[in-house]
Amino acid sequence: MNVKFAGLDIGGPQFTVIAGPCAVENEDQMLQASNAVKTAGAHILRGGIYKLRTRPDAFQGLGREALPIVKAAKAATGLPFLTEITSASQVESLSEVADFIMVGTRNMYNYDLLKELGRARVPVVLKRGMSAKLEEWINAAEYIARGGNDKIILCERGVRTFETATRNTLDLAGALWVKQRSSLPVIVDPSHGTGIPALIPGMAAAALAAGLDGVMVEVHPHPAAALSDGAQALTTEQFGAMMDRLAILGKACQRPVRA
Amino acid sequence: MNVKFAGLDIGGPQFTVIAGPCAVENEDQMLQASNAVKTAGAHILRGGIYKLRTRPDAFQGLGREALPIVKAAKAATGLPFLTEITSASQVESLSEVADFIMVGTRNMYNYDLLKELGRARVPVVLKRGMSAKLEEWINAAEYIARGGNDKIILCERGVRTFETATRNTLDLAGALWVKQRSSLPVIVDPSHGTGIPALIPGMAAAALAAGLDGVMVEVHPHPAAALSDGAQALTTEQFGAMMDRLAILGKACQRPVRA
Amino acid sequence: MNVKFAGLDIGGPQFTVIAGPCAVENEDQMLQASNAVKTAGAHILRGGIYKLRTRPDAFQGLGREALPIVKAAKAATGLPFLTEITSASQVESLSEVADFIMVGTRNMYNYDLLKELGRARVPVVLKRGMSAKLEEWINAAEYIARGGNDKIILCERGVRTFETATRNTLDLAGALWVKQRSSLPVIVDPSHGTGIPALIPGMAAAALAAGLDGVMVEVHPHPAAALSDGAQALTTEQFGAMMDRLAILGKACQRPVRA
Amino acid sequence: MNVKFAGLDIGGPQFTVIAGPCAVENEDQMLQASNAVKTAGAHILRGGIYKLRTRPDAFQGLGREALPIVKAAKAATGLPFLTEITSASQVESLSEVADFIMVGTRNMYNYDLLKELGRARVPVVLKRGMSAKLEEWINAAEYIARGGNDKIILCERGVRTFETATRNTLDLAGALWVKQRSSLPVIVDPSHGTGIPALIPGMAAAALAAGLDGVMVEVHPHPAAALSDGAQALTTEQFGAMMDRLAILGKACQRPVRA
Repeated sequence: MNVKFAGLDIGGPQFTVIAGPCAVENEDQMLQASNAVKTAGAHILRGGIYKLRTRPDAFQGLGREALPIVKAAKAATGLPFLTEITSASQVESLSEVADFIMVGTRNMYNYDLLKELGRARVPVVLKRGMSAKLEEWINAAEYIARGGNDKIILCERGVRTFETATRNTLDLAGALWVKQRSSLPVIVDPSHGTGIPALIPGMAAAALAAGLDGVMVEVHPHPAAALSDGAQALTTEQFGAMMDRLAILGKACQRPVRA
Repeated sequence: MNVKFAGLDIGGPQFTVIAGPCAVENEDQMLQASNAVKTAGAHILRGGIYKLRTRPDAFQGLGREALPIVKAAKAATGLPFLTEITSASQVESLSEVADFIMVGTRNMYNYDLLKELGRARVPVVLKRGMSAKLEEWINAAEYIARGGNDKIILCERGVRTFETATRNTLDLAGALWVKQRSSLPVIVDPSHGTGIPALIPGMAAAALAAGLDGVMVEVHPHPAAALSDGAQALTTEQFGAMMDRLAILGKACQRPVRA
Repeated sequence: MNVKFAGLDIGGPQFTVIAGPCAVENEDQMLQASNAVKTAGAHILRGGIYKLRTRPDAFQGLGREALPIVKAAKAATGLPFLTEITSASQVESLSEVADFIMVGTRNMYNYDLLKELGRARVPVVLKRGMSAKLEEWINAAEYIARGGNDKIILCERGVRTFETATRNTLDLAGALWVKQRSSLPVIVDPSHGTGIPALIPGMAAAALAAGLDGVMVEVHPHPAAALSDGAQALTTEQFGAMMDRLAILGKACQRPVRA
Repeated sequence: MNVKFAGLDIGGPQFTVIAGPCAVENEDQMLQASNAVKTAGAHILRGGIYKLRTRPDAFQGLGREALPIVKAAKAATGLPFLTEITSASQVESLSEVADFIMVGTRNMYNYDLLKELGRARVPVVLKRGMSAKLEEWINAAEYIARGGNDKIILCERGVRTFETATRNTLDLAGALWVKQRSSLPVIVDPSHGTGIPALIPGMAAAALAAGLDGVMVEVHPHPAAALSDGAQALTTEQFGAMMDRLAILGKACQRPVRA
């Protein structure tokens, strides 16, 4: 079932583009990134407020301090906003700014959190666990749907394999397999899926051509200065060029990217 | 650092054996299993109260109904009890019966839950995520330790690979690598690690010989009738034979199994 | 470096399509398949003469009996022919009919065979080993190139992962990574890469959109009756529809598919 | 079926230890290593004559120059010798010195080579492919057996997974699974299986305790100066200590290590 929300029809004809920085760092960074992705044609803004990090001493996100920054970015661009939830206790505070809630790869099996989101009415982007089987991913979505929340978007973000040249192995065929077997829209995150900026536009184009429903990419005005995941962020210029490429491809595939 | 609790010294000379059914199903089943594993020489009783299952319509455990059954089993055997936590909200109710709290493979990256357990004082058995790198596993333990809870036992339970003949690929060398690099006791779960009863005693013996600190195995009086994971449970007879084998080996390795 | 051969410029503007049955079975089957793929616009014909099979009692290919059948198919279509080599001793007999020699996934590390092909002058399609790292794949090509044969095409065919819903996990991003780092053309085999006909056209389209140089697909006039790998073969009708889709996409991407 | 050869009964009560350097480098190195492993109680000497290396410009072994060195080492120790074959054309020259021929991980799927060895009468040690399923490994042995050579020993050497802390993931449970399903002896290579000297003795002990039939380990008089794989070689002192540990364990398990 398509997810219709905030004027969007995810899973419908339009190919949906979600973009923004890995983490909300400060107002300057967020506004620069937001305005750039809006100008290039993105449909949804993303930005991390609470970050899950492997090491407990790494930057864990601004938390509530990010809320006014996000409000400013939404006001400036008019775009809906997506962010990751890392604890069931955040549902209320995130609802102040989030139009979409994302469940990250580390929490795909956190059925307790999924059940909580099943009771919410916010659309959920459910990322695939880093080594989740496709059937398990579909079943995880079922944990949300059983609570009565049918606004679910699946997001493939690469699986963990023996290959180390890329950060993960982006399983486009797996994403397509799920799209053919479930009624849910399926999008792709080539930023985490590859970890390499030079591969992101090609994989975004591949997702569109394969028949998937959208992409989520990380964009930062100054990747080298990013507090998290800078190495995989596109610059605003690279993102603009990617959107041009997707727009041409979208016409040929009858999946318009820009309105 | 060894975990000294309930008269045990996990990580010390004795090789620790944790045994019991996958899930607490009813009083008969639990008492039969408990008495059998006590007789054979197990040191800690295990049994699932809340179960994480891939499908939302699968048996999810008895929940609070299991508490009096567990109390009866503890009273009958005098053994301490270990069970899995699946939600931070269970800390209090589980504390009525649980001497050890286990974090299962699906929750190793659930840092929110790990922080909660860092504030508790109950010893925690932290299973490795099904595709967690060894460094990530050590870092996850750090999320607990930073809260002030230093009673942490790591448990290798097999990782997900291409091989399908066994349920998982038990990474004994990885467990040993972690033992050599952290100060925490490291045990092994050959039941989930292999999924095949005929392999469990051999892998338990291997864990002991390799220098690891203990094993956790599933034992059920009637595996064919088990409500979950029956196919990988040892019968009480098989468990007794395994304990005999471990006892002989433990003497040779100066890791006594029975007091 | 592009591979220019038999009137083709692989790695050049045109997106190359290689198609035909997994194995040459008999003249009827081969001619039907060949004529159909020629009509639909394929550039190179494929067909197995010697097959590597996991079980020694499985169909191992027609061997020399296939040669006159292949000659008939080449004469009927005017297409160049590609087949797999499974032993260095076959170089001479295969040279009677093969315009391209393929090294299959099981032989990517067979450096003895690669050196032999380095001494030949036939273009070589080198498939990635089923769990070969990208660097190892590039190094394997180097074993051929050092012998003086610079006509090498790399073919990604899916890697082995924990996922079982698809036959392999097609690593499109890895293929693109190699294309950006080596001077060799890189194509994709979505038939082995997915094992599922419904996913093949989408993955072929994805390969084109991503900027890769071609695809190799298995086509059989009667997949259900195929002696090997029938379950993943496209029918001739499905192949025709796929070519129509690629032709449209190729125009948008300036990678023409049909002349 | 046990492999009885050169006075040994591999698969019988004795736990077999194969040891020596990764590659034969020169007479001094080979004699030092050989005398040390003999003294410590090894049953078979190993050493690479032809090496398969990922990069074509890496040291590829001494080739025929190694033959007199190996003869000297055999004469000095009285031990039988095992070496890897990398091309069917080497069967004859290797037969001058090799009592056991090893098929390495890269050649497990090289059915052409396996058939050739099926026609030979030398015992074959068949390593598991780096991502071979257990069933495929058993089937590969069948390629040898069908030729009439029933002297086959299987060797688990670690599989390729996402884990990078260890060189490979040693699949002891998989090795035991194969032992329970085939009639062939199964040994383990903890040197390649872990790549870390500190893990090798523990994994060798684990293999013995699990019920497997032997180990193969790399020993070098000066690991830091080794021309290949030095980082994973045991020193002769470490090997001696490992043998002492195995001897104690072997008594407890009724798998004597030293005569």
